[in-house]
Amino acid sequence: MSNPSLLILPGDGIGPEVMTQVKRIIDWYGEKRDLAFDVSEDLVGGAAYDKHGVPLSDETMAKAQEVDAVLLGAVGGPAYDNLDFSVKPERGLLRLRKEMDLFANLRPAQCFDALADFSSLKKELVAGLDIMIVRELTSGIYFGEPRGIHIEDNMRVGVNTQRYTEAEIERGARAAFELAMKRDKKLCSMEKANVMESGILWRDVVTEVHADYPEVELSHMYADNGAMQLVRAPKQFDVIYTDNLFGDILSDCAAMLTGSLGMLPSASLGLPMANGRPKAMYEPVHGSAPDITGQGKANPIACILSFAMALRYSFDQGEEAGRLEAAIEKVLADGARTGDLMGPEGGTPLSTIEMGDVILAAL
Amino acid sequence: MSNPSLLILPGDGIGPEVMTQVKRIIDWYGEKRDLAFDVSEDLVGGAAYDKHGVPLSDETMAKAQEVDAVLLGAVGGPAYDNLDFSVKPERGLLRLRKEMDLFANLRPAQCFDALADFSSLKKELVAGLDIMIVRELTSGIYFGEPRGIHIEDNMRVGVNTQRYTEAEIERGARAAFELAMKRDKKLCSMEKANVMESGILWRDVVTEVHADYPEVELSHMYADNGAMQLVRAPKQFDVIYTDNLFGDILSDCAAMLTGSLGMLPSASLGLPMANGRPKAMYEPVHGSAPDITGQGKANPIACILSFAMALRYSFDQGEEAGRLEAAIEKVLADGARTGDLMGPEGGTPLSTIEMGDVILAAL
Ligand SMILES: CC(C)[C@H](C(=O)O)[C@@H](O)C(=O)O
Ligand SMILES: CC(C)[C@H](C(=O)O)[C@@H](O)C(=O)O
Repeated sequence: MSNPSLLILPGDGIGPEVMTQVKRIIDWYGEKRDLAFDVSEDLVGGAAYDKHGVPLSDETMAKAQEVDAVLLGAVGGPAYDNLDFSVKPERGLLRLRKEMDLFANLRPAQCFDALADFSSLKKELVAGLDIMIVRELTSGIYFGEPRGIHIEDNMRVGVNTQRYTEAEIERGARAAFELAMKRDKKLCSMEKANVMESGILWRDVVTEVHADYPEVELSHMYADNGAMQLVRAPKQFDVIYTDNLFGDILSDCAAMLTGSLGMLPSASLGLPMANGRPKAMYEPVHGSAPDITGQGKANPIACILSFAMALRYSFDQGEEAGRLEAAIEKVLADGARTGDLMGPEGGTPLSTIEMGDVILAAL
Repeated sequence: MSNPSLLILPGDGIGPEVMTQVKRIIDWYGEKRDLAFDVSEDLVGGAAYDKHGVPLSDETMAKAQEVDAVLLGAVGGPAYDNLDFSVKPERGLLRLRKEMDLFANLRPAQCFDALADFSSLKKELVAGLDIMIVRELTSGIYFGEPRGIHIEDNMRVGVNTQRYTEAEIERGARAAFELAMKRDKKLCSMEKANVMESGILWRDVVTEVHADYPEVELSHMYADNGAMQLVRAPKQFDVIYTDNLFGDILSDCAAMLTGSLGMLPSASLGLPMANGRPKAMYEPVHGSAPDITGQGKANPIACILSFAMALRYSFDQGEEAGRLEAAIEKVLADGARTGDLMGPEGGTPLSTIEMGDVILAAL
């Protein structure tokens, strides 16, 4: 049997720097755990634009469709801010999500014990926090038509369309309920059913799917209240299911609560392929961080934990994923810190490479 | 000259309870400060539905158009959860906003010194916090057409439309820049220009309006990052300008940061009327709070501070508004607390009426 295949898209900014550390971890699994991957690498985002004039070439898109999993660093940066909308670095990312049909975006918001002090929130509110946000990722206002800027009565008008079919809401809901079944069996669905009809349909469909998961305790919350409750008492949540746009905002809010933005991975999953594995892309929640790019300061942990999610969700290697996560917990408990994890008391932070070193040593 | 006119719409849940205390304050201004108002009262939300079968009658709408200012309590509650979308209590509120054309929704997120301990956030992050969010309130996805749930290929599809004209973005931006000029001269505009064309137009128009306010320092932020930054370091903000939907979520998030949800007022302002006063509605940020309705526990301060905003923005009585705000600061500093403001150390909370008493006594 051939090795499972991985396409690495380091992207822009700190993407390549953190990805270099992930590649060392991948190599380690091949050498030490007999888990070898066929790794290829390609361009996305601004890096692809610089070479091809588009943020994702058709060749790269085709490769992404063929591999067992894609691992992405980050896209975007100030050099690309004035590009035309259609070739912005972000379009490369959105094309991958859409064409691979990665409808279930899993964003854990976890507070690492050793880092609870870094949260903006009081420690007792976040210590032990472990939320899983499931964000619908291939539909909604990100992709709905009509869209664009046009002229009406001599005036510019900007239009975007939120559009959800019941099938789109349902498949994401099933992914969320399945996750809830493996966790604390609590699911909170968030929308604005009080002002949006698409929110009413959302609530109805999630309620219908609930019939297949009677063991899960389902609640509904308006998204504005959801944002409040995330700040007020985040530990009330187990799994949250929400749409593409609300998920973008609420997951960033939840990520920030943990105080560990440089630590948070994500998985974007689609339908099963012929080999039974789901279409999948893994990426850190953080962005390209232009302010620290090229300085060897970036925290590689979010990207490494994204690879751990790949081990778990694409390669059925939950135990190996746990090994990697445990190594990271250990180095943190031992005090290993990149610059983003330094408290006011100071000290000398580890570089990106040094953080890779200690994690490899702990494996 | 006749007295300025006020239409009071207590609404549902704790709305009537908190409004009773506001009426005492209004009376006090008439008796003690020679500031008498012609006050009328009417139904909105579920209360209007119960009587008229609609959440806002045409008669009430007409009255709201005629008065100098509307003061609203809260709408909604579990009794109305299963109503048809078109007659939900919220529709009454949205009709008022839309037909009065109240495009600039001012939502201060202020942390009261005496209450900084109540925030979920660490005290140093919120002590002295004073943000003004300006939310566009009459357009965007709340009102855009087409909208609704229809059947396509035997499947339900939910649709809503985000639609902004440059004129809509511009007038709200001017309101936000004007406020910034009276404050710390910093404005942050939030959208998702990286994924939505309506966000690109938003960013362009705000940038154009900036030319008329060169003294104001303007920045742009993606709304997801905005949510993060609000949690990470809220004091970086002075005035925030954002659209109807993002404003709904971000202002709730910001409100919760202060730990004083029962304390936060809002003003919704429109165009000037014949008498020079803007069309205006004032309401607390909190909702109808069904869990404590009828128990005499509700905190009336948000609603009272909404009347203070009316004094300032509708009646040019900035000094009298300051007097009322100072009285509230004083009773809080003296330890007056309704149940929502009690710490874990406990004590006996004041009732809604008792809080009204001490504020009146401090005036
Ligand atoms: C980069 C951007 C297009 C993207 C999004 O809006 O989805 C990002 O914010 C995210 O959450 O992954
Ligand atoms: C009650 C609801 C319609 C309203 C909104 O969504 O605007 C509320 O959340 C608000 O923020 O005033």
